[in-house]
Amino acid sequence: MFRYELLHVDQNCGARLGRLHTPRGVIELPTFMPVGTCGTVKGMTTDMVEATGSQILLGNTYHLHLRPGESVVKELGGLHKFMGWDKPILTDSGGFQVFSLAQRTVVDEQGATFRSHIDGSKITITPEISVQIQQDLGSDIAMVFDHVIELPSSREKVKDAMDRSIRWAERCRDAHTLESQVQFGILQGGLDESLRIECAKELRQLDFPGYAIGGLSVGEPPPEMYRIIEATTPHMPEDRPRYLMGVGRPEDLLQAVLRGVDMFDCVMPTRNGRNAMAFTDDGFLKMKNAIHERDPRPIQAGMHTPHAELSRGYIRHLFMAKEMLAGMLVSMHNIGYYQRLMTQAREAIAADRFLDFFEERMAGWAGGKSSD
Amino acid sequence: MFRYELLHVDQNCGARLGRLHTPRGVIELPTFMPVGTCGTVKGMTTDMVEATGSQILLGNTYHLHLRPGESVVKELGGLHKFMGWDKPILTDSGGFQVFSLAQRTVVDEQGATFRSHIDGSKITITPEISVQIQQDLGSDIAMVFDHVIELPSSREKVKDAMDRSIRWAERCRDAHTLESQVQFGILQGGLDESLRIECAKELRQLDFPGYAIGGLSVGEPPPEMYRIIEATTPHMPEDRPRYLMGVGRPEDLLQAVLRGVDMFDCVMPTRNGRNAMAFTDDGFLKMKNAIHERDPRPIQAGMHTPHAELSRGYIRHLFMAKEMLAGMLVSMHNIGYYQRLMTQAREAIAADRFLDFFEERMAGWAGGKSSD
Repeated sequence: MFRYELLHVDQNCGARLGRLHTPRGVIELPTFMPVGTCGTVKGMTTDMVEATGSQILLGNTYHLHLRPGESVVKELGGLHKFMGWDKPILTDSGGFQVFSLAQRTVVDEQGATFRSHIDGSKITITPEISVQIQQDLGSDIAMVFDHVIELPSSREKVKDAMDRSIRWAERCRDAHTLESQVQFGILQGGLDESLRIECAKELRQLDFPGYAIGGLSVGEPPPEMYRIIEATTPHMPEDRPRYLMGVGRPEDLLQAVLRGVDMFDCVMPTRNGRNAMAFTDDGFLKMKNAIHERDPRPIQAGMHTPHAELSRGYIRHLFMAKEMLAGMLVSMHNIGYYQRLMTQAREAIAADRFLDFFEERMAGWAGGKSSD
Repeated sequence: MFRYELLHVDQNCGARLGRLHTPRGVIELPTFMPVGTCGTVKGMTTDMVEATGSQILLGNTYHLHLRPGESVVKELGGLHKFMGWDKPILTDSGGFQVFSLAQRTVVDEQGATFRSHIDGSKITITPEISVQIQQDLGSDIAMVFDHVIELPSSREKVKDAMDRSIRWAERCRDAHTLESQVQFGILQGGLDESLRIECAKELRQLDFPGYAIGGLSVGEPPPEMYRIIEATTPHMPEDRPRYLMGVGRPEDLLQAVLRGVDMFDCVMPTRNGRNAMAFTDDGFLKMKNAIHERDPRPIQAGMHTPHAELSRGYIRHLFMAKEMLAGMLVSMHNIGYYQRLMTQAREAIAADRFLDFFEERMAGWAGGKSSD
């Protein structure tokens, strides 16, 4: 039911063309997963999400556990039925949110105890609880519960969290029983290449059907992130999908594809969309700027998402009038832009010209008068 | 290009089945027009609006004049292209907003001068200016600029505003030059039947291709409104469409259809949608109520709008989590509910059973435990 297929590696770099077969459909790789934090991609119906070319969504275990609770989701038919999305869903484990959102978090060998960021109630998530929540949600791909820490941290602290994450990964694997769901391991190790390689080797022993690179994009400079990706992917199994968690900007996606990563998720396209930032091949546009007032051009020519023909002037008007539709349309545009980028990347890899495509896009983003 | 066709009058009441032919398509009557105040039906893409079965939208002259200004809309191709809606659009004249929204309004024979509710700037709208704005917007149906007053008012004051509205209607007719647009007259006369009849007779002389009943739903009890509609429609031309402005609740629509009204507009479905009130055949649901938490039923069975299968539990969750999608989905549901009601009304009129349909729906709305 679940199978990764490596179709082609670009002759000039590490970029991979692949396919992830799942019971709910085939996912062409590399791909971007829009984030549906609380059971909705913010500001978008599932029809709108589908129209962007998205093949798989991400749901957040931490958020759904807090509200409405996995028992409600399960009783209402599981996350797919709950939110009306019948393509694949990947759920994260809550590890990142326990680190980034929860309050007064205490981590010990058993798990993490913290206060809800919504109502301050005391909550414990252990590897076994995270697995159970994700099974109740009924996602197609679950993530192991990991220990995420801030960067930079001392090597000792990084290694300690990494070792714990490896032990927790094994507990997650052992607790996992849902046959319709697979579980991905998560590589930790901070910005230390030797730790990343060690973690990759340890987790290979646990034989997960897919592997993620976690604990990045937590404030470190992008070149540091690229360095770690480049050091890590050669030690990840070639016959398993590779997922870079929580990343990122369009340039980060291409930098990671170049180094052999297949899957991405990030709130940036929707968060920026609500904040009037629209991605284009010439850099981003600040849609509230007066320069757009009478501009008849679309945000980006050549897009296939619905309403892509609407003018910059109209979008600017919607933001000035504080209309909900403003954030809805630019969120949809931005996710559509990310998916178009992934489609173009797949076409480029198939033709062994990913490096050319990479250079072309980077030049456009760097040279664009990110106006306005 | 523009033609009203009376297809059938129910044998047992005044309900009319009709068709309005316009250059941008045929509108089956009776119909409901969603309100796109600032160039968007709040919280909905035009795809979503179209999926509700809506055949024509309303745009607000007052709001669009203030922001972004009709010159921007015109430069960007007119209101249809601006907002991406190629079916018919009706624009109101601004008369109602000058009365209800503008500040420090002074009306004299020339027109109305007031302060913008957005930035306090001083603005004048005369009949000629209203006509020009609507021509720049490029709507298919324009409304004459009228003098709306609060109710109750003295007969003298009502007659004075009515007489002015008639004089302004003639000035609007004389100022109108856009061939692709028709202009509807607006009947005033407050809650005084004899004034309403007088106004209808006067405006018939001006030979508008359609007539609206204005100045109602401004706070008077619904039975008063029904009484005025009942007294007025017999004096409106049978061969022209009849539009009841700014009304209203589902029961108001059926009460007016019963008395021979063909067209409606109201912000209620979208405003209530954003405020978690969903219309059903059993009354409305307050979607934030805890009773819905684990309810797998759709808001209303038998709906054809997109995502109509989503559970009450999911919708409630979205409201509790303050997700944009909550208001988006319930706005779409509510407009879809209004359009379903109009479709059912048309089917009932064609079969001479509108009275039965009317009683059935009224009983449902009255008897429903508007739960929850």
